Amino acid sequence: MTSTELHVVVPAGGSGTRLWPLSRAANPKFLHPLTGTDRSLLQATYDRLAPLSRPENLLVVTGTPHAVGVARQLPDLPERNILVEPFARDSCAAIALAAAVIERRSPGAVMASFAADHLITDTDEFAATVARAVDGARDGHLMTIGITPTRPETGYGYLCCSETAQRSVIQKVLEFKEKPSLEVATRYLASGSYLWNASMFVWRTDVFLAELQARRPDVAEPITKIATAWDTDTQQDVLAELWPTVPKVAVEYAVMEPAAEDGKVATVPGDFGWSDIGDFETVVDLLGTDVGGGRAFTTRPDSKAVVVDGEGMVVVPSGGRLVATLGVHDLIVVDTDDAVLVCRRDRAQDVKRLTEILRDRGELDYL
Amino acid sequence: MTSTELHVVVPAGGSGTRLWPLSRAANPKFLHPLTGTDRSLLQATYDRLAPLSRPENLLVVTGTPHAVGVARQLPDLPERNILVEPFARDSCAAIALAAAVIERRSPGAVMASFAADHLITDTDEFAATVARAVDGARDGHLMTIGITPTRPETGYGYLCCSETAQRSVIQKVLEFKEKPSLEVATRYLASGSYLWNASMFVWRTDVFLAELQARRPDVAEPITKIATAWDTDTQQDVLAELWPTVPKVAVEYAVMEPAAEDGKVATVPGDFGWSDIGDFETVVDLLGTDVGGGRAFTTRPDSKAVVVDGEGMVVVPSGGRLVATLGVHDLIVVDTDDAVLVCRRDRAQDVKRLTEILRDRGELDYL
Repeated sequence: MTSTELHVVVPAGGSGTRLWPLSRAANPKFLHPLTGTDRSLLQATYDRLAPLSRPENLLVVTGTPHAVGVARQLPDLPERNILVEPFARDSCAAIALAAAVIERRSPGAVMASFAADHLITDTDEFAATVARAVDGARDGHLMTIGITPTRPETGYGYLCCSETAQRSVIQKVLEFKEKPSLEVATRYLASGSYLWNASMFVWRTDVFLAELQARRPDVAEPITKIATAWDTDTQQDVLAELWPTVPKVAVEYAVMEPAAEDGKVATVPGDFGWSDIGDFETVVDLLGTDVGGGRAFTTRPDSKAVVVDGEGMVVVPSGGRLVATLGVHDLIVVDTDDAVLVCRRDRAQDVKRLTEILRDRGELDYL
Repeated sequence: MTSTELHVVVPAGGSGTRLWPLSRAANPKFLHPLTGTDRSLLQATYDRLAPLSRPENLLVVTGTPHAVGVARQLPDLPERNILVEPFARDSCAAIALAAAVIERRSPGAVMASFAADHLITDTDEFAATVARAVDGARDGHLMTIGITPTRPETGYGYLCCSETAQRSVIQKVLEFKEKPSLEVATRYLASGSYLWNASMFVWRTDVFLAELQARRPDVAEPITKIATAWDTDTQQDVLAELWPTVPKVAVEYAVMEPAAEDGKVATVPGDFGWSDIGDFETVVDLLGTDVGGGRAFTTRPDSKAVVVDGEGMVVVPSGGRLVATLGVHDLIVVDTDDAVLVCRRDRAQDVKRLTEILRDRGELDYL
């Protein structure tokens, strides 16, 4: 098996609530051009992954609300390679469905899975890292690419490695760690043997599916039946019957964490300029430009920011309008077609809560 | 002469920069429904003044950018009663033009002039006050209606009266005072003999024009010639020749202040719920509703405000969008079709400066 025979899976889901109101349930982060070019995150992900595989070996798993967006943004992707879930069942279902469909099409294939909404600046190093992970996968490991941490981030999970992480060296993952406190994250960073979990997985589909069957038959069994029916005239009926029974669970929790405890998970560190574009701070840091008094980023050339007597401002004008601020500091101001957000920078993590309040108030049009 | 023969003039100008981005050069404050109903300030002014006069005796003086807006908002106003200035020449030119046109049409008439963009809640008391001022005007005084002050406002000019202001009593205005410091304004308020100058004037047109001729022949002479040509086939030529020569000066400075020094100006206090709707604070105080954490006002039912964990917020969503704020306090947030403003409340007076910065940057579309 050569690297051109690698199968690549892109789960394209998640509404990116921390980027509300730019990212919406119906128009999520991965469909937006948050890349510094006019390509969306999904398109940039495709551009990065296409050289690793053949077009017929690249799959996107997405939900019904985004199938059209995915199809239009990736016109070269074969129709049969866009797997549309009837409704979201968390990452284990999405990844298992892709694995089972690939296993049916190419038994014993190596598959690699990468989120649709991350940004990577060093594509060559990324490709080299994936190749190393593919080697580990061929040896039967459940591989994950962990990101070399650059700061004591409390917003990510961590991989605890068996030794100090070294580029190119495959090593065991002893444990998956939940999002840590700042104190713990600082210790992780100093130790050199913790990596960020970016949900980048590489494995043989048969190895993964066997692991899933052993640990979560309640996921594996309906998914296997669905995959068997996929692309046949029974697909709709089987989906209608079985999809609602698939448990909602993250693949880390269902498979990777227990498998790591059994010594079956390994990692290679990734050091290729990764970002999950998780919040507006990151967006303006990576993609924005200095405006006096802060940084601004827009996806639309007809949108402008003017900051007067400001400091530490994060402005994202994306509604075709001028956003003008006067005498305010350390705020996030985001303008979109139908909603405007004004938020204190240190409350950015609570934007998700704001969207929940909107849902409670019945303002569903804005979600 | 009965009160139905009063001629009423409404100078409809000024761009209301303190209400930017709601109020614009091309769509100024007086054309907006800042009244608590769907009537604009201009229409509410018309509604308030129409009972004081006959339709053919009500004149609006406006500029070329607003002639169409005025014509459409006041369909009952006779065409010949919309006087369109070629370009703005400050209040003395506008008022003198109206006075001279009225004097030509009805020699010796009493005219009363009121801004197009003020709000008055007690219409009956307003009408009664105007009637008192008309009495004074018939006696040959240059009358002004001064507003009984309710706070030590530093944003207005004041009228210094000859004695403690009493409702219904006509008295001399000793002096026009410029915008005072807070200390001085507090003294004015305590004294009981100072009124706010709201540029409400009532006089016989022949008296005013004689005063203008005596003090500012450079204004009076071209205006008289223009008024003579008005409604004739020479109007355009005379305007083209003479309008550019008319000095730009406020009527207070050109006529009222020097006339007061000569004992020719008198006043009646007005106590009828007056507001100049001068800034967003006033707009939400008078017309807004409580939203948790602040007050909001909108002129459009499709616009909404959601304030989460906020305090003292002034939100004016008028762009058909949702404005959501999170964890911020004491800010003014204004959303319109093409611009968003985020401003500290205590910097509200500097919004005018912001518009100047926009002009300097060439952002003329937003002015």
